[in-house]
This record gives sequence, C-alpha cells and structure tokens, in this order.
Amino acid sequence: MSSGPINSKEGKVLHPDLLNENLKKTQYAVRGELFLKAEELRQAGREIIITNVGNPHQLGAKPLTFTRQVISLCAAPFLLDHPEAAKIFAPDAIARAKELHKAFNGGVGAYQDSRGNTHVRAEVAKFIEDRDGVGPADPNHIFLTDGASPAVRLCLNSILRNENDGILVPIPQYPLYSASIQLLGGTLVPYMLDEDKNWAMDMASLQAAVKQARADGKAVRGLVFINPGNPTGQCLSYDNLKELIKFAYDEKIVLMADEVYQENIYQDERPFVSARKVMKEMGEPYASGVELLSFHTVSKVNVSGVELLSFHTVSKGTGGECGLRGGYVEMNNIHPKTVEELYKICSINLSPNGVGQVAMSCLVNPPKPGSPSFEQHKQEREAELASLRRRARMVTDGFNALEDVSCTFTEGAMYSFPQLKLPAKAIAAAKAAGKAPDVFYCLRLLEETGISTVPGSGFGQAEGTFHLRTTILPREEKMAEFVSKFRDFHEKFLKQYK
Amino acid sequence: MSSGPINSKEGKVLHPDLLNENLKKTQYAVRGELFLKAEELRQAGREIIITNVGNPHQLGAKPLTFTRQVISLCAAPFLLDHPEAAKIFAPDAIARAKELHKAFNGGVGAYQDSRGNTHVRAEVAKFIEDRDGVGPADPNHIFLTDGASPAVRLCLNSILRNENDGILVPIPQYPLYSASIQLLGGTLVPYMLDEDKNWAMDMASLQAAVKQARADGKAVRGLVFINPGNPTGQCLSYDNLKELIKFAYDEKIVLMADEVYQENIYQDERPFVSARKVMKEMGEPYASGVELLSFHTVSKVNVSGVELLSFHTVSKGTGGECGLRGGYVEMNNIHPKTVEELYKICSINLSPNGVGQVAMSCLVNPPKPGSPSFEQHKQEREAELASLRRRARMVTDGFNALEDVSCTFTEGAMYSFPQLKLPAKAIAAAKAAGKAPDVFYCLRLLEETGISTVPGSGFGQAEGTFHLRTTILPREEKMAEFVSKFRDFHEKFLKQYK
Repeated sequence: MSSGPINSKEGKVLHPDLLNENLKKTQYAVRGELFLKAEELRQAGREIIITNVGNPHQLGAKPLTFTRQVISLCAAPFLLDHPEAAKIFAPDAIARAKELHKAFNGGVGAYQDSRGNTHVRAEVAKFIEDRDGVGPADPNHIFLTDGASPAVRLCLNSILRNENDGILVPIPQYPLYSASIQLLGGTLVPYMLDEDKNWAMDMASLQAAVKQARADGKAVRGLVFINPGNPTGQCLSYDNLKELIKFAYDEKIVLMADEVYQENIYQDERPFVSARKVMKEMGEPYASGVELLSFHTVSKVNVSGVELLSFHTVSKGTGGECGLRGGYVEMNNIHPKTVEELYKICSINLSPNGVGQVAMSCLVNPPKPGSPSFEQHKQEREAELASLRRRARMVTDGFNALEDVSCTFTEGAMYSFPQLKLPAKAIAAAKAAGKAPDVFYCLRLLEETGISTVPGSGFGQAEGTFHLRTTILPREEKMAEFVSKFRDFHEKFLKQYK
Repeated sequence: MSSGPINSKEGKVLHPDLLNENLKKTQYAVRGELFLKAEELRQAGREIIITNVGNPHQLGAKPLTFTRQVISLCAAPFLLDHPEAAKIFAPDAIARAKELHKAFNGGVGAYQDSRGNTHVRAEVAKFIEDRDGVGPADPNHIFLTDGASPAVRLCLNSILRNENDGILVPIPQYPLYSASIQLLGGTLVPYMLDEDKNWAMDMASLQAAVKQARADGKAVRGLVFINPGNPTGQCLSYDNLKELIKFAYDEKIVLMADEVYQENIYQDERPFVSARKVMKEMGEPYASGVELLSFHTVSKVNVSGVELLSFHTVSKGTGGECGLRGGYVEMNNIHPKTVEELYKICSINLSPNGVGQVAMSCLVNPPKPGSPSFEQHKQEREAELASLRRRARMVTDGFNALEDVSCTFTEGAMYSFPQLKLPAKAIAAAKAAGKAPDVFYCLRLLEETGISTVPGSGFGQAEGTFHLRTTILPREEKMAEFVSKFRDFHEKFLKQYK
C-alpha cells in the first residue's frame, strides 16, 4: 500500500473527494442546474425554447454561404479542379479555397504552426489594421486558437501564479472568467457594472475593488472587460474606454479585452470601437511608440504602453460559427519573451484546428466589392444583423412591458439581462425549496413554459437583486411566442406570490 | 502604486520573470530548438525534409476520400439535396452527412454537448465494443475532444493536486506528458523502457520507480503508457499489458492508455490489443463486474476495477487528420461523480469542434461492406498501411546499416528512435558548443542535409545514451533520398570525430 499522501478512497484514486481542489471548486453556470434540467426535459420529449446559450445555428440561423463554400472545398481538395464543382461553388470561393489549401501546406488535415497558419494570421493583422485605422498589427503577436475561450485561458494561465494573484472581472460577468480563474488557482476580484447607467463601467467601483484587493494582499494583475457586454448587452463608449486604459496604465494592470461581439451592434449611438484603437489614439505613454518587434529578435523591449490582450472569434457576429471553434488573441505591448513563452505552451497542443482557421480567414477577409460572392455575402450579413436588431428590441420591450421587470436595451452582443423584482413570498418559497430566488424563478419558468434561461446568480449580480439571462437568438417567427409565453408565466408567478 | 506582491518589472506585468512558474518551467522539445532552426532555414529558402512531427498530410499523404466527402457535405448543408452534388459525392457519403447534420442539431456550426455530440459518442462506443469483443462501452463515459492532447490534459488536471502528486511516465516519452504535468504543477515519475528488449515495459523498473517516489513522499496517482510507442515504436504484448493492469490494481494507480497509434501496426506477431480488452478478459477484481451507470444516476459506485482512461484520435492511423483535431477519452471504472466533474470542466470550453467529431464518426464507423464507398475506402486505408509498413522497414534497415547506430524495428506508430554511439570527440565538441551531444548531432544533420529530427533528450533516454527520433512519414519515393542523405552525413560525421 501507498505510504505517501492519501491516494485513494473507497477504492478509487479518482474519487471525487480526491481530485484537484481548484477543479472541484470551479463552477460553470451556463451549463449548470438549469441547463441539465432542460436537457432532462428535452430527452423526455418536452419542447424546449433554448435561450440559455449563444448558439445561433441550433436555433435555425443559417451559416454564411461564402464561408461554408470555402470550408467545403478546403475539406475536399479533390473538388478544387473538379469540372462539376464550378457549377456548385462560386469562383471566388474556389479561388480562396485554393489559396488557403496551398498556404496550409497539406491542407486542413495538417498541423499548422502552433500559433495558427501564417497566412491567416497575416489576414487577421490586416483586418485589425483596417478596422482600427491606427497602423499595422503584428501577425507574430496574433495567435489563432480553437475559439476565444482557449485563448483566454492561455493568457490567464500565464498571468496567474497563485491565489494571491487577482484578476478584475466585471459583475455581472461571463462565467468563462470565474471558472478559468478558479481552475487556474487565482483570485477573482469583482468590480460592479452600473445597471442604472446601462451597465457602464464605473471607475469608482474599479478603483475601490483594486484598493480592497491590495489591502487583502493581492497583486491585481489583469482586468477583464467585455465589450459589447455579456450578459449585459451594453456597448462601451469611447470615453469609458479611455478612462479604462488610463486606469490600466496608472495601476499597471494587463487589459483583457473580450471583444467577441464586435459585429453584434444594435444601435447607432455607440458603434464598436476596439480598446486597441482607443489606446493608440491616446498616444504616449499609453500607446507605445516602439516599432513592432518580430518573433525571435528580441532587440528592444517596450517599457511603455498598456499591455493589452484582445480576443475575437468566429462563433459570434453574423456567421455564428460556434461549432467550428476559431478564435484569436492579439497582443499589444506584451514583452516579446512572454510571447515566446505563450508560443511554447501552444505547442503542447500542436495546432489549432484547421477548419476554424479557414472560417477565421473568411470572417476577417470577406469577399471584396466586385467579386462574385460580394453581394450575396453582404446581403446575408446585413439581413442577419437587421433581424438581430429587431429581436433585441422585441425582447427588451417584452421584458419592460412586464410588471416588476426592468431591462436595459440590448445595445450589442446576443443577450438580454432583465432585473426581476421578486415578491417576498416568492423569495421565501425559494428558500424553502433550498434554491436561490433567481434559480427558483428560472426553474419554474423552464418547467412551465419550456423556456431555458440562466439565472443571474450564474453571472453575479448586486446583492439583493435578481436577474436572468436570455439570448435574443430565437428566430423572429418564434420570438413572439417566446415573449407571450414569458408574459403569461410571469403574470401567473406574480399572482401566486404577490 | 501596488502595495501587494511584486507585480511588474521593467514596466511589464507580463514580464517573462513574473509569469506563472509552472508555465515557465515547461519544456516542449518537439517544437524546440531543432524545430525553430528548421523553420528558420525553411524561411531562408532551404529545402527541409520534415521528419520531426507526425504530420502525414504535410508530407503528401492524401486524406481518405469518404471522410472528406462527408466533411465537405456537412460543411455545406445546401449541397445535401443539390442535384449536382450526387455527381460529385458518393451516395453513402451523402447519407452519412445527412445523418450527422441532423444529429448535430444545427450542423457543424453549432455547439454540441460539451462532451461531444451524443450520436458520435454512441458510434465511438460501438466501435470500442466491436474492437474489443468484451461487452459494451458506455457513451456517457466517452468524451470527444479537440484531439487526444486536450483529453490527456483534462484527465491530468483532475488527477494532479500539487507537486506531491506523481504520474509514472515511460522514458523515452512523448513530451505532451512531461509538458502537461509540469504545466499543471505535478511531478513526473520516470520509469525506463528496456531498449534491449525492444522497448518493452520493464516491471522491475516500474516497481522501483514507485518505491522511490513514495520514499520521496509522492502519491503516485497515474501511469501513462503509450502503445504502440512514441517515440519508440514498440507494440506491447498481451502479457505485458496483463502485468501492467495487475500492477495498477495492486498499487492503486490510474492507468492512462495512450492508444492513438492503434491502427499503425507494421508486424503480425503483436497486433494491437487495447488495455480495456485485456482488463475485461482478466475478470475480477480487475475488470469490475458492476453494470454501467448512466450519467446523473449515481446509484452504485464501483469499488473494484482498475481505473482506466484510454485515448484515441483522428490525427494518426491511415487518415492522419492531424489538423482537424478530433479525439476522445474513454473512461472505465471511473467514479461517476468524477465523470461529472470532468463534464463540468469541459463545459468551460463549451464544445469540441464539430468537424473533428465528423472525422471521428468516419474513423469509428467507416463504410460497411456492400456500401458504395466501401471498396475505395478499404483500398485507401490498406494501401497507406502497407506503404507505412514498407517505410518502417526502410527506415529501420537504413539506420541499422550504419556504423555505431542501432535501431529497434518500428513495430507500430510513426517513428524510429535509433541509438547513436557518438565518438568521444563529438561529445567534446558538443560540450564546447554548449549543446547536449544529441542536440549537437541533430543540428549538424539539419544544417548539412535539411533533415529535421528531434534529439532523444527531448523524450528522455538512459544516462549516457544518445538517440534521435524521425518519423517514417516521408513518401516512399522520398524515403530513399532520406536514407542516403542520412548515411552520407553520418559517415562524414564519424570520419570527422572518430
């Protein structure tokens, strides 16, 4: 028998009591109790209105034709010069697939550089340059990943050293952050978004959070912000971003900019602006004036400039290619030797998936005006965006029409996050059932209507307030049903408990 | 300024000196100095003979037609009922794509269950059942992942709690294991494979390693074995696996069976046999007689049975779909609540990529006799396997024909791992150049011939011995060139230093 530390229990080494502590402590609400209950009902034959996960294709969103033509051809290189293929695929899709197939050196079935294919990284750099208009991005500081989530985890893994390292995370937050920080053994330092100001970043709350964390002996090393917000749907203003960048510079904190919803904007007052653009336009000492350093030529180290990590994905936007798992992190003002360390860690996993990289190529380098697929591609994206805008309005208005519900407008992203003023009797009933009040509400909603949401407690919310998150993704023809079912349930619920 | 722990250096929070310690300490030789040098030469226009990574398509291996037809169609659902598509795609490929498209509920662009699509997991379970002939596998204990590497890391993450937890890893080993264990903060406990016995598992070495580790205060929680071996190419015998399972049972250690090369067998004496099959055939108390438990109905916990995690992938075999990133872990006798914990962790990443899952479906459920694609698919796989077998022989014979080189036959997998008896003068020259002798040799080989290999020190080797790893993947028409270039270099090298 073992003479070392306790190694098994009830005959099991992998006994649930003997697993990694951080892994055990990790919570992940988006696929928590509500999700599992919805699965159970679905398997029992109930029709479920899925609004708990931002997964557009599952609800009938169609993929973009150009993207899928290119992927289809890259997957079947024997079609690239097939005479019949020209009858099915657009000529520019064929041309792009040929270009990528060649650049991939063995095609999508070959491992690429662990940072992602060089050609696609150059396309991403060009996209960022064109988007921001503040000069070139460095392809060697762009890593392609299997969706944005692994990119976030990679960066957190480098930042977090132990439980004394803290990361500022907005409340409410997307639970990728709380889960990853816990799994990696760091500390989440919460800062509150201001619901009364449409979930704006509140600099006073940020400053207070840092001060408190430091008083508790934490090194505050990173700050996550999500723009447009998840689950809160707000778009940050240019001025808000300026304050944030100044704050990061003054306090020496790495900015982690979750910008995966940058295409999902449903109002005209605050178009998406990247943190990178704002930072560059602020000039020194925020922007860093040092020219880009190429990989493996560490000649000069930036001492100025805000350390900024930006994340993007093919999962959201109007393409909604969640299942393809394509994402990237772009690094600004990160020490070149640190970039090397991250490259080393990527290498353990050998290569991000090839198809996700092809999808990324199509996202960042869509058909140009005059090319055969241009009009259709443009029309598909615009139609989906316009529909999402209408749905954002329908959902928000639907919630605001209800008694004791208030909901800020979904300015961007894919979610509504209404606040529910729950009656005291409902809170007592929840307590009696051993549930948090918002969980109690959402479970009842699910059981009675089939609408599957995520309780606000999964994202964090101000003490004593209750929310839930829905996506705005049911197709428009389904949306009226969603709104009316929700209303009927809510009225019944209030009647019972008020 | 910060008043907590040291948070920045030279103006950088992400200063290379201030990163996560485990991340810094992690090494990954397959993409280490030799790889980077090869990249540098390639970018400078040198022709590189790539034998450092098992990446068949990069060297001209063709994907399997059926698999790629199915993927191409799943990527382009608008082709599924397209009249022209029937002229290009086989009817059974169209039928399979329709089946998967439906099962994927939104197609490959939709997030699937975090454990992978239910339909594909059932196909994997059937494959395992048919392969082993020892009863059914439980789809709920099969998780699909983005290649086998993330599956290995997921399991290690649950096993390893701190630096006092050890994992037995063969030496030589595939550096995924050393890198992941370091990154997760555990301890690698090496056990030596016996080169004189064709790299067999040496039970005495295993026992000695466990004893020593325990004396050092380590809990030995896991044991990795690679069958067929990487980088060593051996196939384990049935009896060797029996000893191993008995050892794991007696010592209470979780078995991690890296069986990703199970299709790559180049001799007839020892066909692949899975650890699961051997375990089940050993009967109680190794096999566990408790019937399968379904997820979320923890009615009864197995106290008997060896905890066994088996890994497989679409990257190897005759398909060689490295870039698609499809893999799985199958869990046997793992506590159901632990399986739940792993499910929770998978959820953070939402979903493995859809195309990798389609490739997995095609791997585990290939066209059946009588179906339109059957003959071609069978022929493609057999031709590739026969060619790999010839190449295994050519490479091994080529090495054994050289003075001071000995190489066990590549019985399986994709690699040869010859031992080099380096002259004292070469060792001295290496020392003078500040390089390990095998690194010195491999760098010279690369510079003079363009042949890119990995030094044995990247995998671990017995003290005072030197090896290198090559793949057997250059196409046959290139193989003669590889062998003759290697020979010429080696003779010149010996002449210089002997």
